[in-house]
Amino acid sequence: MIAVKGYAAQSANETLAPWNFERREVGAHDVQIEILYCGVCHSDLAQINNEWFPGIFPMVPGHEIVGRITKVGDHVKGFKIGDLAGIGTMVNSCGECGHCQDGLEQYCSEGVVPTYNGLDKFGDGKPTYGGYSNSIVTHENFTVHIPETLDLAATAPLLCAGITTYSPLKHWKIGKGHKVAVLGLGGLGHMAVKFAVALGAEVTILSTSPQKEVDAKRLGAHHFVVTKDAEQVEKVKGSFDFIVDTVAADHDFNFYLSLLNIDGVHICVGVPVEGIHLDGALGAFSLLGGRKSIVGSACGGIAETQEMLNFCAEHNIVADIELIDIKDITTAYERMLKNDVKYRFVIDMATL
Amino acid sequence: MIAVKGYAAQSANETLAPWNFERREVGAHDVQIEILYCGVCHSDLAQINNEWFPGIFPMVPGHEIVGRITKVGDHVKGFKIGDLAGIGTMVNSCGECGHCQDGLEQYCSEGVVPTYNGLDKFGDGKPTYGGYSNSIVTHENFTVHIPETLDLAATAPLLCAGITTYSPLKHWKIGKGHKVAVLGLGGLGHMAVKFAVALGAEVTILSTSPQKEVDAKRLGAHHFVVTKDAEQVEKVKGSFDFIVDTVAADHDFNFYLSLLNIDGVHICVGVPVEGIHLDGALGAFSLLGGRKSIVGSACGGIAETQEMLNFCAEHNIVADIELIDIKDITTAYERMLKNDVKYRFVIDMATL
Repeated sequence: MIAVKGYAAQSANETLAPWNFERREVGAHDVQIEILYCGVCHSDLAQINNEWFPGIFPMVPGHEIVGRITKVGDHVKGFKIGDLAGIGTMVNSCGECGHCQDGLEQYCSEGVVPTYNGLDKFGDGKPTYGGYSNSIVTHENFTVHIPETLDLAATAPLLCAGITTYSPLKHWKIGKGHKVAVLGLGGLGHMAVKFAVALGAEVTILSTSPQKEVDAKRLGAHHFVVTKDAEQVEKVKGSFDFIVDTVAADHDFNFYLSLLNIDGVHICVGVPVEGIHLDGALGAFSLLGGRKSIVGSACGGIAETQEMLNFCAEHNIVADIELIDIKDITTAYERMLKNDVKYRFVIDMATL
Repeated sequence: MIAVKGYAAQSANETLAPWNFERREVGAHDVQIEILYCGVCHSDLAQINNEWFPGIFPMVPGHEIVGRITKVGDHVKGFKIGDLAGIGTMVNSCGECGHCQDGLEQYCSEGVVPTYNGLDKFGDGKPTYGGYSNSIVTHENFTVHIPETLDLAATAPLLCAGITTYSPLKHWKIGKGHKVAVLGLGGLGHMAVKFAVALGAEVTILSTSPQKEVDAKRLGAHHFVVTKDAEQVEKVKGSFDFIVDTVAADHDFNFYLSLLNIDGVHICVGVPVEGIHLDGALGAFSLLGGRKSIVGSACGGIAETQEMLNFCAEHNIVADIELIDIKDITTAYERMLKNDVKYRFVIDMATL
């Protein structure tokens, strides 16, 4: 076994603290990665707090992992020692169902093995531990290459926030000629803006905060609409082909559907802890009166994650991040809950 | 003006009774139709009862109209005296917006003029009166040809129930290789079954009533699932590519989403008076965990309605109807509310 240092919650709702644990030896198809940076995702805190389901403790969070390969198994073909590599939200799947065969491992019929807070049911059956640690061992099939040209720390959030927004944009073939609104300017939202702009769409940020406009434009958005301003809203009614909705909190779907053109698609990528609540009823005519859609999308497959990273290298896209020491993770969580971050915290693992 | 006999509600919630009124003279682009049959739609009663919005009274309902052309305007090109003709849910639109130009008059940017309970804002500005009457005058552009080979009375419901289910099946390209579930075996549902079967899909009816199975098979459905039977439900979990949802009452979307395969689409065509309520929250993972969609669709354009009628002639598809005398309309409404009809009432206008 391999000795690893990390930060863990020993039980639900506990503060993270240093914890030493072990990972499996590097198998024939495994790689070992020295973790250099790990992004901080809302879902890390949600899972520590058992907001999704009763978690497995001790829990080492983190699924936006980048680092350098330090060891490869005998049969590893895609990686060599010294390569930059990344791991996202999953580390195993059945590999045999139609979805896995189609490169849609995130929708594995047997259920994917998450990077942390899961049991590796297709492997050794043991709990998985995430990226708030100095080393990880994974199957090469769940490991991606990180382009050397990108800022490494700012690349970490691409492994979750990045692919979660890139995947639906590609799936719904969003690009030139499309009007896209992004709802929620946080970790996911700011990536959605960068990708949609790079794909050639005309991008509008919808926000309740007028003061975000400067930053919105800096991120590349073409327009900014304050949703509390009736006059601004009136001008964009029925105009968007897509809304990329990254907001986890309750909001009024009828209102946002009214901003869509016919055949418009409202894409949900945020994961509200308590489900997608609707303010009262979803007006039947909100959907029917324009053949509109509300759809969901969850991260992306491994091949698509690699495609996304290559796209980022080509377009020089990374996340806007604030680099933190791991000892400050609790403060970072507190600030994250207040949306006081532009736009993603990343842990510098050298501080572990 | 043309003197017309009909049945009208003189005010909201009133019982229908004979009423004589006038229609405009036949204009250069108009046709006059002697109405032979008119289908009875749930929305007729909803509108009489002001369930959608405050109605225009007296109200002559009816938007599933078939009959024979008795007069044509000087510039009418598509119809001649003696032709069978039909009128559906709309009689005018702006004709100039992108949607009208694309043959999607039902989504006219300026708002379509309904066949009854509307003002003809693109014409004479006067109230429109529907098909519970012996004659109607419409622009030829909102009139369709009825194939002579079809049973005429049973063709009437195609003008609303038919196109409302045909249009989404075509839009989402449903056919061979698709597993389609139909939810709600009523006027819309039984048409959805017939169309989906004719398009080559494998069709399952989802129902709470085991006794409907015989009829479901008679209509051509390949499978029947009693949704209260956990064992039957377990077998179809994650299996459908599409659900065609014709149910207007509240139901549990999370349950039905769980029956969809990944990329599955839940198509709402019923119009719940009080909107689409969700039992509690729509589970975020219900949508995200399989890239699923909830979509809406409203009737269909004029060209597509004609296409649907031609498709019906080719496949010998009509509605299953119960022909009634117009004096029995109130009883028919009472029975409709109890779903005591297989599957659509049609008024024999000779009884007027």
